[in-house]
Amino acid sequence: LSGTKYGCGIGGCGACTVMISTYDPVAKHRPANSCLLPICSLHGAAVTTVEGVGSIKTRIHPIQERLAKCHGSQCGFCTPGMVMSIYALLRNHAEPSMEQIISALDGTFQTVNCKKYNEINLAIRFFILTSVKITKSLSFPPQRMAQEQLRTLIFHGKRTTWISPTSLNELLELKAKYPKAPLVVGNTSVELKKTHHDAYHPIILHPVRIPEMYVVSSTDDGLVIGAACCLAQLRDILMEAVPKLPEEKTKIYQALLQHLRTLAGEQIRSMASLGGHIVSRGSNWDLNPVLSVGKSVLNLASEDGKRQVLLNDQFLAGCEHADIKPKEVIVSVLIPYSMKDDFISAFRQAESQKNALSIVNSGMRVLFSPGTDIIADLSILYGGIGSTTLSARKSCEKLIGRQWNDQMLSEACKLVLEEIFLPSSAPGGRVEYRRTLLVSFLFRFYLEVLHGLHQMYPFRYAELSQEKMSALVMLPSGVPQGVQIYQDVDSGQSPQDPVGRPIMHQSGIKHATGEAVYIDDIRPVDGELSLAVVTSIRAHAKIISIDASEALRVPGVVDVVTARDVPGENGKDEQAYAEEKVICVGQIICAVVAESVTQAKCGAEKVKIVYEDLEPILTIEDAIKHKSYITEERKIEKGDIEKGFESADEIIEGELHVGGQEHFYLETNSVLVIPRVEDKEMDVYVSTQHATDVQELVASALNLQSNKIMCHVKRVGGAFGGKITKPSLFAVIAAVAANKTGRPVRFVLERNMDMLITGGRHPFFGKYKVSERRSYFAYAYRLMVHGGTQWLKVQMETSHKWCSSRVRAGANTV
Amino acid sequence: LSGTKYGCGIGGCGACTVMISTYDPVAKHRPANSCLLPICSLHGAAVTTVEGVGSIKTRIHPIQERLAKCHGSQCGFCTPGMVMSIYALLRNHAEPSMEQIISALDGTFQTVNCKKYNEINLAIRFFILTSVKITKSLSFPPQRMAQEQLRTLIFHGKRTTWISPTSLNELLELKAKYPKAPLVVGNTSVELKKTHHDAYHPIILHPVRIPEMYVVSSTDDGLVIGAACCLAQLRDILMEAVPKLPEEKTKIYQALLQHLRTLAGEQIRSMASLGGHIVSRGSNWDLNPVLSVGKSVLNLASEDGKRQVLLNDQFLAGCEHADIKPKEVIVSVLIPYSMKDDFISAFRQAESQKNALSIVNSGMRVLFSPGTDIIADLSILYGGIGSTTLSARKSCEKLIGRQWNDQMLSEACKLVLEEIFLPSSAPGGRVEYRRTLLVSFLFRFYLEVLHGLHQMYPFRYAELSQEKMSALVMLPSGVPQGVQIYQDVDSGQSPQDPVGRPIMHQSGIKHATGEAVYIDDIRPVDGELSLAVVTSIRAHAKIISIDASEALRVPGVVDVVTARDVPGENGKDEQAYAEEKVICVGQIICAVVAESVTQAKCGAEKVKIVYEDLEPILTIEDAIKHKSYITEERKIEKGDIEKGFESADEIIEGELHVGGQEHFYLETNSVLVIPRVEDKEMDVYVSTQHATDVQELVASALNLQSNKIMCHVKRVGGAFGGKITKPSLFAVIAAVAANKTGRPVRFVLERNMDMLITGGRHPFFGKYKVSERRSYFAYAYRLMVHGGTQWLKVQMETSHKWCSSRVRAGANTV
Repeated sequence: LSGTKYGCGIGGCGACTVMISTYDPVAKHRPANSCLLPICSLHGAAVTTVEGVGSIKTRIHPIQERLAKCHGSQCGFCTPGMVMSIYALLRNHAEPSMEQIISALDGTFQTVNCKKYNEINLAIRFFILTSVKITKSLSFPPQRMAQEQLRTLIFHGKRTTWISPTSLNELLELKAKYPKAPLVVGNTSVELKKTHHDAYHPIILHPVRIPEMYVVSSTDDGLVIGAACCLAQLRDILMEAVPKLPEEKTKIYQALLQHLRTLAGEQIRSMASLGGHIVSRGSNWDLNPVLSVGKSVLNLASEDGKRQVLLNDQFLAGCEHADIKPKEVIVSVLIPYSMKDDFISAFRQAESQKNALSIVNSGMRVLFSPGTDIIADLSILYGGIGSTTLSARKSCEKLIGRQWNDQMLSEACKLVLEEIFLPSSAPGGRVEYRRTLLVSFLFRFYLEVLHGLHQMYPFRYAELSQEKMSALVMLPSGVPQGVQIYQDVDSGQSPQDPVGRPIMHQSGIKHATGEAVYIDDIRPVDGELSLAVVTSIRAHAKIISIDASEALRVPGVVDVVTARDVPGENGKDEQAYAEEKVICVGQIICAVVAESVTQAKCGAEKVKIVYEDLEPILTIEDAIKHKSYITEERKIEKGDIEKGFESADEIIEGELHVGGQEHFYLETNSVLVIPRVEDKEMDVYVSTQHATDVQELVASALNLQSNKIMCHVKRVGGAFGGKITKPSLFAVIAAVAANKTGRPVRFVLERNMDMLITGGRHPFFGKYKVSERRSYFAYAYRLMVHGGTQWLKVQMETSHKWCSSRVRAGANTV
Repeated sequence: LSGTKYGCGIGGCGACTVMISTYDPVAKHRPANSCLLPICSLHGAAVTTVEGVGSIKTRIHPIQERLAKCHGSQCGFCTPGMVMSIYALLRNHAEPSMEQIISALDGTFQTVNCKKYNEINLAIRFFILTSVKITKSLSFPPQRMAQEQLRTLIFHGKRTTWISPTSLNELLELKAKYPKAPLVVGNTSVELKKTHHDAYHPIILHPVRIPEMYVVSSTDDGLVIGAACCLAQLRDILMEAVPKLPEEKTKIYQALLQHLRTLAGEQIRSMASLGGHIVSRGSNWDLNPVLSVGKSVLNLASEDGKRQVLLNDQFLAGCEHADIKPKEVIVSVLIPYSMKDDFISAFRQAESQKNALSIVNSGMRVLFSPGTDIIADLSILYGGIGSTTLSARKSCEKLIGRQWNDQMLSEACKLVLEEIFLPSSAPGGRVEYRRTLLVSFLFRFYLEVLHGLHQMYPFRYAELSQEKMSALVMLPSGVPQGVQIYQDVDSGQSPQDPVGRPIMHQSGIKHATGEAVYIDDIRPVDGELSLAVVTSIRAHAKIISIDASEALRVPGVVDVVTARDVPGENGKDEQAYAEEKVICVGQIICAVVAESVTQAKCGAEKVKIVYEDLEPILTIEDAIKHKSYITEERKIEKGDIEKGFESADEIIEGELHVGGQEHFYLETNSVLVIPRVEDKEMDVYVSTQHATDVQELVASALNLQSNKIMCHVKRVGGAFGGKITKPSLFAVIAAVAANKTGRPVRFVLERNMDMLITGGRHPFFGKYKVSERRSYFAYAYRLMVHGGTQWLKVQMETSHKWCSSRVRAGANTV
């Protein structure tokens, strides 16, 4: 089934969305990122892929038809995921609210690059307006409806055993027996921590059949939520609870809801559990600071009994005395009601409003002595700054007893910046920005509280000025707006003439049904090998040695391919396989071909490269300084430069910096190379914008005439200019391996490798100088643009966080 | 490895020739038809395929280069087999004699159809003249050189156990334990008897390591030859023995040699054993009548001891008292010396002089009372007449005492025709012809003996007349002659202009190396299914029912496809899948697709068709009588027919019959159909002369636009007109199956199915009538040609023997 796409592999893009249906005791349908779903977790569940929604072969579903006919697809790669998100929504809510619609699609709008963004929005609006309804009820497989017999499920894998116990007692016994075994519910964080092929858990506990862990109850102190409840459930519970409770009790719930609306996508929210979110304690995990300032309590259980611990800063920092014990599990969480004099706020700043990890997040709470603005208690926690959530505990303590005024704010900012120290070399970079966020959030909290005080005691506390109020305005988060404008074709135009008419994408239906075939959807070819590359971890270095001996011993590994195996030209402007030295991080040094992707990746990890470091040039400015040019400096000059500037009445000059950018096509670079038996002919199936270049580079790499290389491009799953030059090199990498082994080779980059190797759009640096004279007859100007790596030799060593905190160092070569 | 081709599957065509090398105690190289080689028989042997001789990837061997450059390939399908035959010859004989060269190539000239016949001959002559020599000695794998340890080899298959004992005693024990187990040496006859997938031997004994069975000794009575000696060895032994013995002793040996030069090809002669030849007792087995008239003796052994039986007509007829017992094996054969007054002759008549089963063969011997022409003993045996070798024993007895003269001949002919009765309905047909051969052989023997008597006693017996001597002239069997004539291109013709120049076939080298890819050489495609068809066994019948239930239960069978599964047009001029009725034997009724060829064939055997017979029209004459026309009668008329014939001075009229003929392309009909995922597109790889027709028929069968069907034809392994219309139907058969299952389908016909289904060139029947007038101004003629099935509805039910006595009924449909 080709409809479920690999886009990022880390639950970020939604291209792999499927619907998971369980019957417990009524049918429940959840969208999920299939890339994160362990197969064992699907026991007893029905999985609906886009093929199950509709296909050309069977019947197209109205969702698919509308999306196609309203021009809702461009490259079409993410379209099946969008269909699945909409489908899962409509299965659960026949008449969804606009908020539900927006939420449902959160996880499929990663592709901000996509030029059809507006059109997709419009298509969805159109689709909603014309009220597609799923009238036919899903025929839930009867065998799935039968209540699962209450016996322990155990799956024995080669390395991992997966155990799903039936009761809390059994779980506690297991946890006592296997204290290191993680509890996995949605697998949205455990999976991401597996950075290495070799990292794995021998035992995984899957506590989804334990009623205690799904409890939802309201006590005198607050709401108790089972630890296995997913974040979407938490949101729905809170949304239902808030209107029913006195407003003063709900301040923490509202703060949580504010995050729950933007945190991740609906797919992740539907799978990630509350307990998992808390216990993973990711520094970017948005809810923890809020739960913590709200003095939430974890209900723990172990063989030895039950106990409660505070979800406080010490717990989040992993202090041993405040932490849960290896034998313990979090059964549920008590989220207390807020009090009258409580003010609780939540903040997050991310690269996009939705479906992006926060750069910095925060939970803040102040409790005033009743009826005053004297601080009785204060908590400020920040995420995204250190490796764990940090508390400005000392600062807060010092501020107790102070009035909530500008002096306090000024003092607070100073204290917080001192306490929450962010060294300039802090991992993740953007230190200045993050420092700014620390106090920005604090300032905003200050204003929010002031505004709150005024609203509570309008006569005691002054109203905020207009200017200050403007800081409290939320960013608009309404319905995405879009418009489609079609050319008004001449009434005389022949009906057969399509020019100017809004015609559906030729593959529109296939996009929506997932039947459109991209490179990695091509059936496996007999004898096909998978390829994984070994890339440079140095910006500039001599390659002293490549030791493939251990890699070749990995079962399934067939060969290791290096520059020495290229019979002809090893690339054109840049080397396909690095020869004597590497000139950027991420440069391909060699390739491992194996019977499976896993084996190839495992082999690649085992290749040992010895480098001898050379001095790198890391910035454009450095390159100019060292005259590290590839071509002549490029400039545009007009007029008589010397004379013009000499006689100028005015000279305007300056510099222009433009940063680099990921192209972020959703389909990663993909090549399938099939050597023909005769005449060394080769078929190259590749996702490229420049098929001729692929043909020429592969032919020249193999020392063949171009006509021996057949380059096939049916469609491309996004490119945006990013698939003009690089795919040819990837094709060379695969073709040389295929030529050496005589077997077909498939080379589909994983997202992190794609971003690491391709480097994206270059940063630019330009200088301009314009002379002006009163008389407009004489003028001169000079524009010089230094492309980051276009005309300069630069070794780049940038690294920034992307989604799952995977480190990425992107750089283009010469 | 694609170089070893399937041509016939029964050791007939030589396209699959490989070289088997054993080391015992010196290296021995034998050409062999790999289609008949059981894998178990290769234990301890090295197998060299054409890829081992040379390839473009490695180095081309001089044999391959010369064959290509001397234009020795046309379609190229049999070329690798020819290379292997030559290679094996040169491995054994660095400077072969012309006779050895001719013998070596016997088994590769099945393709009399091939228009390049002469050129191939020339290429070989050229090749010999330029004395290619194998100078580099084959590096015989050292582990193969080690004397095989003397332990019993046992291979346990799923159904069959293969046992190779180390001593005669062990063999006899095994034969006592498994009396039904056949002894297999070269597998050239046991294999061919397996007509059904279900026919198999639970135990096979492989007596190739028993020295007694390879004995060669000369005794006072004659030569003793081990039963496991192959026919090529027998030939070489006899050729060596004859010059060393007094001529009168060698008459039987010379008669045997006459057959051994033409019987089968060198590949079969190198593998088939003498004992196997004798004990199989095929009616067409040429040596048996000769051995029998020469009073050969079989040395038998069993657990109970040794004994001798006469290889006489009763043994050959399988009479129990004269036969070997189940526990016994033939250890060796005593072939006695002939005597002075002995005359022994051997006869065979086959469709071609070499490498064809004899239609009728015979061994004849007369012994005269010393110094006279009075018959003292007479033996006449015929093969090819009945199911076993037949003896004219009674006739011979009656003629004892008679003089060798015309009266005796006349009487003998009468007696033999009475005794060797061949009913007009005898299996194999051609009864009149075969009857004629009985007396022709006798007549020739009569003359040979007369001539011999004259030579022995020139004064007592008259010389034969010139006319009679002419009957004794042997057919020329010298070196094939050929000539290549090239156009003399104009001296001014540009060297770049190839027209008129003798340019090597573009694929010549690839033909010779086996690297040329034909349909069945295309790599398996992922998920590929094999297809086998169920064909009609009736000439004309209604199909009452098709019961596929049992077929569908065969493991690996995926589906059974019938006319009901054709979404569009089921063929054009003839149905692809028979619908309501069948109109000839061999018409395709349904197809079974399975994971493997074996499973598909097994499934096809299990499909049950119920027929209701209809009256068939079996001949062209019948069809004319019943006005069973498809189109208008075709005729060519010129002039004023009525007036012309009325006023004719003379009218010439008559009929013309032309028989049908097999096209006998060496590559059987082959199709590989790969459905693409999108838009129901399909790639059709097919061996056809008419790609457009394939495209159109497949598209119309699947109800698709033609542009959805990609028909690929790289090359065709022979066609001769036989691949114009039929391949389209085979493509439809496969495409409908692929469309139904959604999986790639490979449909490669076995030789017998190809001949059964395709029907070959039609027989023709024409009438002509021409009027003539003295005045040449007025004339008229009419020609009418009735193609067997071209313009007439005819159901044909011909069956004739082909090579291995597989029954074949060829007929074209409407």
